[in-house]
Amino acid sequence: MSVDINCDIGESFGNYTVGNDSAVMKFISSANIACGFHAGDFMTMRRTVLLCLESGVSMGAHPGYPDLQGFGRRSISFTPAEIYAMVLYQTGALKAIIESEGGRLHHVKPHGAMYNDAVGDQEKARAIAEAVRKSGEDLILLCLYGSKMEEAAIAAGVPFATEAFADRQYDSTGRLVPRSVKDSVITVPGVCATRAVLMKEEKRVMAADGKFIMINPDSICVHGDTDGAIEIVNAIYKALEEHRIAVEPFKGRKNR
Amino acid sequence: MSVDINCDIGESFGNYTVGNDSAVMKFISSANIACGFHAGDFMTMRRTVLLCLESGVSMGAHPGYPDLQGFGRRSISFTPAEIYAMVLYQTGALKAIIESEGGRLHHVKPHGAMYNDAVGDQEKARAIAEAVRKSGEDLILLCLYGSKMEEAAIAAGVPFATEAFADRQYDSTGRLVPRSVKDSVITVPGVCATRAVLMKEEKRVMAADGKFIMINPDSICVHGDTDGAIEIVNAIYKALEEHRIAVEPFKGRKNR
Amino acid sequence: MSVDINCDIGESFGNYTVGNDSAVMKFISSANIACGFHAGDFMTMRRTVLLCLESGVSMGAHPGYPDLQGFGRRSISFTPAEIYAMVLYQTGALKAIIESEGGRLHHVKPHGAMYNDAVGDQEKARAIAEAVRKSGEDLILLCLYGSKMEEAAIAAGVPFATEAFADRQYDSTGRLVPRSVKDSVITVPGVCATRAVLMKEEKRVMAADGKFIMINPDSICVHGDTDGAIEIVNAIYKALEEHRIAVEPFKGRKNR
Amino acid sequence: MSVDINCDIGESFGNYTVGNDSAVMKFISSANIACGFHAGDFMTMRRTVLLCLESGVSMGAHPGYPDLQGFGRRSISFTPAEIYAMVLYQTGALKAIIESEGGRLHHVKPHGAMYNDAVGDQEKARAIAEAVRKSGEDLILLCLYGSKMEEAAIAAGVPFATEAFADRQYDSTGRLVPRSVKDSVITVPGVCATRAVLMKEEKRVMAADGKFIMINPDSICVHGDTDGAIEIVNAIYKALEEHRIAVEPFKGRKNR
Repeated sequence: MSVDINCDIGESFGNYTVGNDSAVMKFISSANIACGFHAGDFMTMRRTVLLCLESGVSMGAHPGYPDLQGFGRRSISFTPAEIYAMVLYQTGALKAIIESEGGRLHHVKPHGAMYNDAVGDQEKARAIAEAVRKSGEDLILLCLYGSKMEEAAIAAGVPFATEAFADRQYDSTGRLVPRSVKDSVITVPGVCATRAVLMKEEKRVMAADGKFIMINPDSICVHGDTDGAIEIVNAIYKALEEHRIAVEPFKGRKNR
Repeated sequence: MSVDINCDIGESFGNYTVGNDSAVMKFISSANIACGFHAGDFMTMRRTVLLCLESGVSMGAHPGYPDLQGFGRRSISFTPAEIYAMVLYQTGALKAIIESEGGRLHHVKPHGAMYNDAVGDQEKARAIAEAVRKSGEDLILLCLYGSKMEEAAIAAGVPFATEAFADRQYDSTGRLVPRSVKDSVITVPGVCATRAVLMKEEKRVMAADGKFIMINPDSICVHGDTDGAIEIVNAIYKALEEHRIAVEPFKGRKNR
Repeated sequence: MSVDINCDIGESFGNYTVGNDSAVMKFISSANIACGFHAGDFMTMRRTVLLCLESGVSMGAHPGYPDLQGFGRRSISFTPAEIYAMVLYQTGALKAIIESEGGRLHHVKPHGAMYNDAVGDQEKARAIAEAVRKSGEDLILLCLYGSKMEEAAIAAGVPFATEAFADRQYDSTGRLVPRSVKDSVITVPGVCATRAVLMKEEKRVMAADGKFIMINPDSICVHGDTDGAIEIVNAIYKALEEHRIAVEPFKGRKNR
Repeated sequence: MSVDINCDIGESFGNYTVGNDSAVMKFISSANIACGFHAGDFMTMRRTVLLCLESGVSMGAHPGYPDLQGFGRRSISFTPAEIYAMVLYQTGALKAIIESEGGRLHHVKPHGAMYNDAVGDQEKARAIAEAVRKSGEDLILLCLYGSKMEEAAIAAGVPFATEAFADRQYDSTGRLVPRSVKDSVITVPGVCATRAVLMKEEKRVMAADGKFIMINPDSICVHGDTDGAIEIVNAIYKALEEHRIAVEPFKGRKNR
């Protein structure tokens, strides 16, 4: 049995630093690199790519809405055509930086509000899948388990992988509880680790209302900017290891 | 005998329109497309790429400083490393949009203050040449005739082509007279046309002080946002035609 | 009988020009000046203030969402606290520029998506009214006739005035038909002029479905960036004059 | 004997946090608040103003170049007219937020590259002094001891105060050694404290080359984002106290 651990990194901007990218490297197999719209800039991107290459971590583009102040977490009424073009743009920019260093772009994962908007909106999900399809052969769309994005990837014939969150609460329909809701972000390392193991061994996780929901993700997402992020990802990594679940980059699939 | 005519296009932004890109298409062989830093945005870029594909015009990236308010014309004290990374970023973004439509990126030409800063600064010129080299095989750096950028391209082994301006004054050392100087931009179509023809037939042009300077560019640059731009490029195109100088995209060269 | 004519101006940005501000000046009594978030910049603002002072037109702040590419027309999920702070910020910036030239800030009118979001959302309307109250004594909130913003101004004790649109369609509940709907923007000068006169003489206007709705605005809003804007505002101005309806700046009222 | 301690604060942006503003409050008498161009945003500004009001610290505007990625530290070729307008804009925005909470704007201090550019450029210094004069009566320009800005303030009749840096090296002409030079930022608390005390008691400080330069500032500037900033400002505060030099907000003077 194996699973990927992915983390959003490269979210610093100019003089501003967030996360502890180099510390998180040894516990993850895939990285989602901010592309300069919601976070990151051309210098941060290059530094982050070099760090990933050094660590052997698979690199993905992490395109977001152009809203640095809101960190890409505010919903903005973009049209599908705008989302399509902004994913192409950001993915292309990162791909160029990766290839300039001899690396290879592995996947694309939308960020924040773009991700959330696409989870439930067929047109926006399709725009993203289409942009990934046009951004490179074999490029994998990393999407929320059981979402419209997954459906859109299948429909577009785009290789995809699914992820789940060990440090976020779900509701009983399988949706993420918004960050604005109290306790929706889980900060106890042991709890996150248990959730990650259960997702793979029992293919389920407990929702916020106590019900179990079925889930069997290709990747576990951890956050680098949560308080105690390193402790959490360390705990997840160790627990997976102990349960003999190998941590390795996800592969693209064509159907569920 | 042949020469290229290149024009900066795709400089609209959101609700703001500048230039008359579709009108200029029939008179040019190469286009430099703004990449979202000094002008242009992901929607404008896509529209512009479609327009170029339709018109059969060679497409180049036109990276600039991140200064929309200043239209990339203000000098900013960027380091060579920053210039390198921002050229990679912008070129990659445009390349992705071009390739998503089945097109091919032909060249890179820096914009405004980045262009001017690199004309006389070896380190900045080298940063740009290096970024072009890393952005794709056979990608051509379009640079000012007789500049540090040309030298940097030769040193880096990057294919290059040279351009001259039919609608801008030169000083007697071969440098462009700054836009802030009165009459440095030429607006009389016939004068621009004559200058273009002389550059190819006699390999020279008259500087602002009346002296002739030697010049033999691979491409004539025209501006799309000058008053009467269409009349100017039309006049140049017609004059070249009359003098049996074919207008066609430049090819990359490796030395002078 | 009298009415104000207001127009959004100062929407140019850096190298980009929109509208024909100086031409529109002779037909309006109040101007809403963009404050650098959705349009305008510190240079444009200063030029626009000087133009208004020269023309004797009352000056208002026209704060918008920080979204230049979308011209402030995209809805963004800002909290009321964020809207409050961004109105304070933008209004303060313009007020400083106006007072530096010896002028006086007369009113505040939210722009685009901020305006539309506040028309139907009590909390956002209240945030705007509160920001106006804190931005200066006697400052008038210019709001849509019959909206939550009007209610919020009354509740906050903020002087207000109401406006209606001569060049936009209404639905039968009194709301503006969105710009994305075909024919929602009226471009025939005579039609706009008739609507303006009827609003004052008969206190009503015809909605998109043919029903009349009651309306009696303190100000008629005209757009400077519509095709043929000058013809429209000219037609409205002349028609009001002919019907002996004086065009003069609105005054603040405390209740309906 | 008395002196002011000033610190740049409110430099966080959206999701990004820098400095430890609340910790620094008890050791300073004046704060320079970022105004949204090089750092800060409308939410951060409001939070910072509330913090200053709570702490009884004098509030100043800290306008900078519009360059968030470069933190306002890159020189940009702005004209004096542009600098004038951007200082008016930013100062007005902050003033509005301060006055909305019943506070009073005390001073203006340009940031980073704007500060450095104005230190040696008469036209830019004059533009800033003029903007301060137009931004409010009795508003004080806080400027580098012995700089063009001081001269410009005197010439414009603008109240001013001078500052010196306890944690930065000077050259023997009295100019700051650029941050890019090794060891130009002093990080040993005791050294900073000694320098601060000597500036007031002996009216001199040791330059990087070992020579003493004369200096008698109204204010000591400390940085909140230097490593160990709190220890430094704490050490300075304690040393001044021990030497019976009262720490209190500077007053405006009209001549040297």
